[in-house]
Amino acid sequence: MDTVEPAAARPRAAIVVTGSELLTGTIADRNGPWLAGQLTELGFQVGRLLVVGDRPADLADALAAAAGCALVVTSGGLGPTADDLTVECVARFAGVPVELDPEMYAQVNRTVAEWARLRGNVADAPLDAPLDAALEAGVRKQAMLPVGALALPPVGTAPGLVLRRPGGPLIVVLPGPPSELQGMWPSVLSAAPVAELLTRVPAAAARSLRFFGLPEPVIAQTLRELAVPADIEVITCLRRSELEVDIRPAPGLESRAAVLADEIVARHRDQLVSADGTTTDEALARVLLDRGWFVATAESCTGGLVAARLTERPGSSAYVAGGTVAYSNAAKVSQLDVPAETLAAHGAVSPQVARALADGARQRFGAAVAVGITGIAGPDGGTANKPVGYVCLCVTTDDGAVLARDPVLRGDRAQIRERATDLAMHLLWQAGRR
Amino acid sequence: MDTVEPAAARPRAAIVVTGSELLTGTIADRNGPWLAGQLTELGFQVGRLLVVGDRPADLADALAAAAGCALVVTSGGLGPTADDLTVECVARFAGVPVELDPEMYAQVNRTVAEWARLRGNVADAPLDAPLDAALEAGVRKQAMLPVGALALPPVGTAPGLVLRRPGGPLIVVLPGPPSELQGMWPSVLSAAPVAELLTRVPAAAARSLRFFGLPEPVIAQTLRELAVPADIEVITCLRRSELEVDIRPAPGLESRAAVLADEIVARHRDQLVSADGTTTDEALARVLLDRGWFVATAESCTGGLVAARLTERPGSSAYVAGGTVAYSNAAKVSQLDVPAETLAAHGAVSPQVARALADGARQRFGAAVAVGITGIAGPDGGTANKPVGYVCLCVTTDDGAVLARDPVLRGDRAQIRERATDLAMHLLWQAGRR
Repeated sequence: MDTVEPAAARPRAAIVVTGSELLTGTIADRNGPWLAGQLTELGFQVGRLLVVGDRPADLADALAAAAGCALVVTSGGLGPTADDLTVECVARFAGVPVELDPEMYAQVNRTVAEWARLRGNVADAPLDAPLDAALEAGVRKQAMLPVGALALPPVGTAPGLVLRRPGGPLIVVLPGPPSELQGMWPSVLSAAPVAELLTRVPAAAARSLRFFGLPEPVIAQTLRELAVPADIEVITCLRRSELEVDIRPAPGLESRAAVLADEIVARHRDQLVSADGTTTDEALARVLLDRGWFVATAESCTGGLVAARLTERPGSSAYVAGGTVAYSNAAKVSQLDVPAETLAAHGAVSPQVARALADGARQRFGAAVAVGITGIAGPDGGTANKPVGYVCLCVTTDDGAVLARDPVLRGDRAQIRERATDLAMHLLWQAGRR
Repeated sequence: MDTVEPAAARPRAAIVVTGSELLTGTIADRNGPWLAGQLTELGFQVGRLLVVGDRPADLADALAAAAGCALVVTSGGLGPTADDLTVECVARFAGVPVELDPEMYAQVNRTVAEWARLRGNVADAPLDAPLDAALEAGVRKQAMLPVGALALPPVGTAPGLVLRRPGGPLIVVLPGPPSELQGMWPSVLSAAPVAELLTRVPAAAARSLRFFGLPEPVIAQTLRELAVPADIEVITCLRRSELEVDIRPAPGLESRAAVLADEIVARHRDQLVSADGTTTDEALARVLLDRGWFVATAESCTGGLVAARLTERPGSSAYVAGGTVAYSNAAKVSQLDVPAETLAAHGAVSPQVARALADGARQRFGAAVAVGITGIAGPDGGTANKPVGYVCLCVTTDDGAVLARDPVLRGDRAQIRERATDLAMHLLWQAGRR
C-alpha cells in the first residue's frame, strides 16, 4: 500500500462496493462511478474502487487495503438478510462493537410496517406471504449500530453510518440501492465529521473541455507536446463520441492549468464543443430553446434512439415535436413521404433517402429542423458498397440549410447505433448554431 | 487475504481494471462486469473487481491482493503513452523482465502505419499533426513483452498477454477498449495455459429464473423458507424490471439446485417469464416471429425508448414495422389519428389516449400488434390526480385483444421512462403469448 503522498496532493479516498450480484456479470455497479464523481468534485483523489462479494473476509481485506486513505465510502450490505454484513465488518475495522439502537429500531420499524401495509397495493405481489417474523428480525438487524457511530437517517429502511477508525480513515457506510445511496448523500455532506474533513480538502478547480471528432491519439500527442507538469492531472475520456478532457491541477496550480486549457483549445478549436463542460446535448437543447425551434426525427437504423436522447432532458417538450421510426420501406413512404422512386433509385440506405426522411419528418411534425438517419447496423445486411456501419445522416432546416454525412461507423450493432445517434445530435447542434 | 477455500469450491478469479478516467465518475467501467460474466460462466468464482488509476503503486497493490487467486485478468494500461504501465507492473509481479519482441514490433508497426494512412479519411481529424516520431515510440512500447509471456494477437494495436507468477495465479493481460478486449477473448480461451487451467474448473451449472413483477423482499422470504444450503449460491438481481434468480451449485449439488429451482418456480409461477434465462425481450422476439406478427409503437413519455428496445436485436426488421414518437398533442392527432375529442375529454395522459395511440400506430404501420404509451416522466407536470410517474400503457392486437395498465412508477425521469419501457415490452409479450 502506497501511503506516501506527493506534496500538495489531494487527499485520497477509496470506494468499497459490496454485492455478489455485481461479480457475476449480471448487473454493473452504478454506485462506484457515481461516488467517484462526487468525491472527485469535492477535491478527493479516488485511488481505488473495489467491488467485493457478500463475504466477510473479502470485505475485511478491502477495508484493510484502504486504511491509508483519508476517507472510505462503502455501499451495500445493509439489508435485512444474513448476507448483509457491512455494519459488522466496518465495526470490526473501526475496533468497536455493535449494539441495538432503540431509536433506530423504532424508526426502521415504522418504515417497514408502512411498507408492509402498502404492499397490498403493489401490482403482482402476493398478499399472503407470511413476512412478519422475518421482517422483525430484519428490522432488528438494521438497527444494530457500531458504538460511537453517527447514524444517517434511512432513505429506504437502512440507516447510513459515519465512523472513524482510530488513527485511520473516516468511514461512510451507505446503502446499496442507487436511489437510497444518492438520496442519503446530502446527509453525508452535512454530517459533522465529514464536514470537518472537507474543510481540509482543497477545492477541485477542474477545467473540462469537450470535443467532437477528435481522436484520442491526437489529444495524447498534444499533451506530450505541451509537456503537462505531473501535478496537473489531465484525464481524457470518450463518452457519447465526445472527447472529454478534464484538467485537475494540484492546489496552487490553477492558473497554470487555465493556460494549459487555453493552449489545448487553440490547437483543436475546430472540434471544440465547449470549454466549460457543456455537452453537445446540452448545447443543442439551449440552441433550440434560444431559436424557438422544434425538432423532429426520422429514424431507421437507430430505431428511436435519437428521439429518446432528445427527450431525455426535463422540459424537452418545449422543443421536441416528435419523430417516426420507419423500419420498413413501406413505412418510409407512407409515414414520412419518402418518394418510392428515391428508394428504388438509390436504395433505402443512401444520402438521398436520409434527406427525404429529414424533409418528411420536418414537414409531418411541423418542425423547424429534423434529422433523417438510415444505415446498416448489422451484423447482417452489409454489401461491398454499403458495408455494416455505413450510415447516412441528413439534417435539414426550414430556412434551407442541409448538413449531411455518410460515414462508415465502427463497432458492433449497439455501438453503430450509439455512434450514429451521437453524430445525429452533433449535426442537429451544428445546424442550430450556424 | 482469505486464501482458504471451502471444500469443492470454485476456483477464485480476480479482475483488475486500470484507468484514472474510471475513478472520476466520468465514465463507468464496462470491462469489469463483462469479464465477471465470462468468468462466472466458465465456472470461476469472481472474488473481487478492483478499479485503480494509472499509478504503478496502486496497480502493484491490486495484483498483490489477488496473489491467492487461480486467475487474474487485467484490463487497460496497454496503450502507447507513458501512463500505460500495466505490462511493466505485471512483469514485476511475475518476477520477469520485459524486452522488445521483434515480431510483435513488426506487427504493431504494420497496424499503426495502416491506421495512420487511413486517418486521412477520418472525419474531423487534422491531417497535419506530426505523429510519426511519437507513433514509433508508442509502437516500441507496445512491443515490449515480459520474458516468457505468451502474446495474444492485437485486435487494436496492443497485444494481450498470458503469463504465470511462479507459485501464483495465471495472469491474463487485456487491452482497455471494450471492443478490443471482447475481440481478444477467443484467443484467451484457446491460449494453452488458460485452456489447461479450464480443464480444472468445474463447469458452472447455473439455473437462471426470470420473473416480472416479483418484489425482491418476496423472493428473499422464499429463499429463507426454502433453507438454501450454503454451498448453493443464489444471486438475485433486478434488471430491466425483471427479477433474475441465478442458482449456482457447488460441484456435485446440481440436482439439489434443480429441485430448488423447481420449488421457487412453483411458488411464483404467475410472475415467471422463463426458467431458462430467457428474457422478456427474447421471448417477445420469438413470439412475434412465431406468429409472423409485425409490431408498431406510439410513444409519448418514453420518447422512442420502446422502439429502440424492439430494434436492439439483430434481425428485428423481420417483426418491427416502425413507430411514432408523438410528444405534442398535435402530433398525436396528425400522426396517429388520436381523436381530438378523446384528448380533450380525458387529457393526453389517460388510458383512453393510450388505447387510441396503440390503435393508431397499429393501423398506420399495418402492424398486427402495437403499444401506446403516454405518461408523466417528470420532474414537472404532475398533478394530484396524475402525479409524476403516472403512465398509461395499452397494447392492442388486430384480433381484438386489449391489455392495459396505468401504474404510478417510482424513480426519477430516467427511471420512470425505463420502467415504462420495461412494462411495454412485458405487455407486448403477454399479448403475443396468449
